[in-house]
Amino acid sequence: MEKVQPKTLPGFMELLPNEQIQMNEMKERIKKTYESFGFLPLDTPIIESAEVLLAKAGGETEKQIYRYEKGDNDLGLRFDLTVPLAKYVSEHYHELTFPFRRYQIGKVYRGERPQKGRFREFYQCDVDIIGEGSLSLYNDAEIPSIIYQTMHNLGFYDFTICINNRKILNGLFEEVGQKQNSVEIMRTIDKIEKIGPEKVAEELEELQVSQEAIRKILDFIQITGNNDEKIAQLEKMITQEGELQQGIQELKFVVQHVRALGVPEENFQIELSIARGLDYYTGTVYETFLNEYRSLGSICSGGRYDNLAEYYTDKKLPGVGVSIGITRLFYQLNELQALKQYKENMADVLIIPMVEDIKPCLPIVTKLRENKIATQIYLEDKKIKAKLKYADKLHIPYVIFIGEDEIQNQKVTLKNMTTGEQQTIGIEEAIEKLK
Amino acid sequence: MEKVQPKTLPGFMELLPNEQIQMNEMKERIKKTYESFGFLPLDTPIIESAEVLLAKAGGETEKQIYRYEKGDNDLGLRFDLTVPLAKYVSEHYHELTFPFRRYQIGKVYRGERPQKGRFREFYQCDVDIIGEGSLSLYNDAEIPSIIYQTMHNLGFYDFTICINNRKILNGLFEEVGQKQNSVEIMRTIDKIEKIGPEKVAEELEELQVSQEAIRKILDFIQITGNNDEKIAQLEKMITQEGELQQGIQELKFVVQHVRALGVPEENFQIELSIARGLDYYTGTVYETFLNEYRSLGSICSGGRYDNLAEYYTDKKLPGVGVSIGITRLFYQLNELQALKQYKENMADVLIIPMVEDIKPCLPIVTKLRENKIATQIYLEDKKIKAKLKYADKLHIPYVIFIGEDEIQNQKVTLKNMTTGEQQTIGIEEAIEKLK
Repeated sequence: MEKVQPKTLPGFMELLPNEQIQMNEMKERIKKTYESFGFLPLDTPIIESAEVLLAKAGGETEKQIYRYEKGDNDLGLRFDLTVPLAKYVSEHYHELTFPFRRYQIGKVYRGERPQKGRFREFYQCDVDIIGEGSLSLYNDAEIPSIIYQTMHNLGFYDFTICINNRKILNGLFEEVGQKQNSVEIMRTIDKIEKIGPEKVAEELEELQVSQEAIRKILDFIQITGNNDEKIAQLEKMITQEGELQQGIQELKFVVQHVRALGVPEENFQIELSIARGLDYYTGTVYETFLNEYRSLGSICSGGRYDNLAEYYTDKKLPGVGVSIGITRLFYQLNELQALKQYKENMADVLIIPMVEDIKPCLPIVTKLRENKIATQIYLEDKKIKAKLKYADKLHIPYVIFIGEDEIQNQKVTLKNMTTGEQQTIGIEEAIEKLK
Repeated sequence: MEKVQPKTLPGFMELLPNEQIQMNEMKERIKKTYESFGFLPLDTPIIESAEVLLAKAGGETEKQIYRYEKGDNDLGLRFDLTVPLAKYVSEHYHELTFPFRRYQIGKVYRGERPQKGRFREFYQCDVDIIGEGSLSLYNDAEIPSIIYQTMHNLGFYDFTICINNRKILNGLFEEVGQKQNSVEIMRTIDKIEKIGPEKVAEELEELQVSQEAIRKILDFIQITGNNDEKIAQLEKMITQEGELQQGIQELKFVVQHVRALGVPEENFQIELSIARGLDYYTGTVYETFLNEYRSLGSICSGGRYDNLAEYYTDKKLPGVGVSIGITRLFYQLNELQALKQYKENMADVLIIPMVEDIKPCLPIVTKLRENKIATQIYLEDKKIKAKLKYADKLHIPYVIFIGEDEIQNQKVTLKNMTTGEQQTIGIEEAIEKLK
């Protein structure tokens, strides 16, 4: 028979079992964290009508959409989880209870040019709180505590959640007479971490920003000190009511409440250069960095938006949320050999029957499973060496041998695969040890 | 602004939060069960090259594939999890350890004509064991114990796992001189549950099967008795070596070992009419019925196949597995109002601050979460009635009020939302109660 080459498409992550166990464990820990904050699960279709998907998109995103046109069908694969959320909340508005707190962990698709570390199919892990008409600023303070807990549960301790407020930046630009350029300026200063202040100054010059304004902006976003010192310096700058003042007050409020929620000072920090590239953020913005791997960029980002679903509904639906791009993060950590080994094995124990008729062994298998011990029985006709190698390759930490003697005496022989230690004991005792 | 109508496509399931909680819990229980048998997780891309997808497909399946052709790209969305498994095992053959036991729970796509209860996007929950060259028959006995445990963990107790062996049917057809028609005959008798024996006889007549052969076939597939009685009757029929004899011996072996694995007699049964429509099964086949909802058809089906990946590799990879179509099952149970209420709420408790400055309440929120109590804090400025209604709508079973008095005395007021009972107690005591 002519064979088809079994190939996975470029740009699509497909893991070997040991890696998949880690990846799943990361997703699971994120999910459990989101759930511990009471977020509701959501699972929207991967395919949406092109009209819905493109309501807002445009430019690069539109080009990247996997689009499927056939007859009357004009469909596409979702490129993020925000558009489906906006659609969902608009469509089911009357059936939902607000504030609507949902998480969604799912695959999204972007037909990017394939390159190392870029994926065309990847998981996003989103958490958002959507208000009806309004949403209190307290929610902006809850987000960093969700990020903090998520990072901890993923086994990361040395990280910084950077917080800023777009109103501060907007207010500043207004004060230096650059309101009309604010989107471009924001995009430029957002890159300061990557390109440095000199390059930012150059790019601002190209935008026709005056030297004085550039100096003020750069001085501002490079304000130093701890969180309280930064706030104190910011408060000194308030000369009138307006966006700058409002942004500073919001930021101060958020910082105070993040603190009260128990996020330690070393894990969050006001970072005045952070703006987030996306236009729709209107207030608080977040980025999160692993301090040891700062080069990865932000691994958990988001912010406050005034209106989630304006393309679908007249209802005003402000929200705040963050997202983790777990596929890319997993890939990068793996490349850096910085992946946590959360879990190595699926089976806790491998039963190896040493008898012709395995029937007497089977109730023991069932009993172990009833005791919540993930149990596998080796069923193939192989040499004992091959069976032990199997346990070894799958990182199964214990093996149980059951031979004639064991059956006769209602015992099992339990072997610790790490130490090599082996003992013949009662089944109950083995269960205790395995637990 | 012109609005786009926020509409989910027909044939795509999108659930409200309360339903989504149940659906996720069903998927979670299936996953946990599969994992308790030591199966490795797998997560292949939803998009595959059309060449890979179509290696085997053809006919109806091919027409139903969501295909995406653009430039050099000829891609499609997977229509099951078996083709991706076959590709995966062939592609990563040298990196895998055999027998390769994997589960996969994921969405698949079929462009079926939309109709009630039929979905274009649906979850399959597959579990398979793939051998290298050979795979012992013991594995065929393990599958029903996986089904049994899965059903139990889903809260179903009144179900029947029907087992048959295709070799028996093939052998029988050979004995009555109908070997050349075996695929068609198998498809026909597979429908006996739905259309009854008379209609089966009619259809067999149309296939030019002789009256004597029809009588023999119908007598055979309607053999009655318990499992042992059926086996005894079958054994009496063995007159020579061959497929019939082999099939009967295999079935007997499987039944004996299913029993030894602790599956109760009332939950599994030899059912000689079961053949499974798919051509690739070669030995044991399974179907599972909820006895109270027999009309749903089989909710968990599968079988033994001789060669998983013949379209991709010369390696012989026999396997055995089953699949649960959870989207359809969920829909049908929901329609019948037969869904289990596994879980109603995500948050275990809603904190309602009764003070202007909520900062003193926040450490309590964090403390509850540290104690693994899923905790949500109500942060909007609403009347107390609206806040309680929120807890009620989200089925949150407890509310904690924190007012000035509580803060002063380091207490909380815990309200049981079911009984209405309310008491002011210490935080540690509240934690104990909530646990």
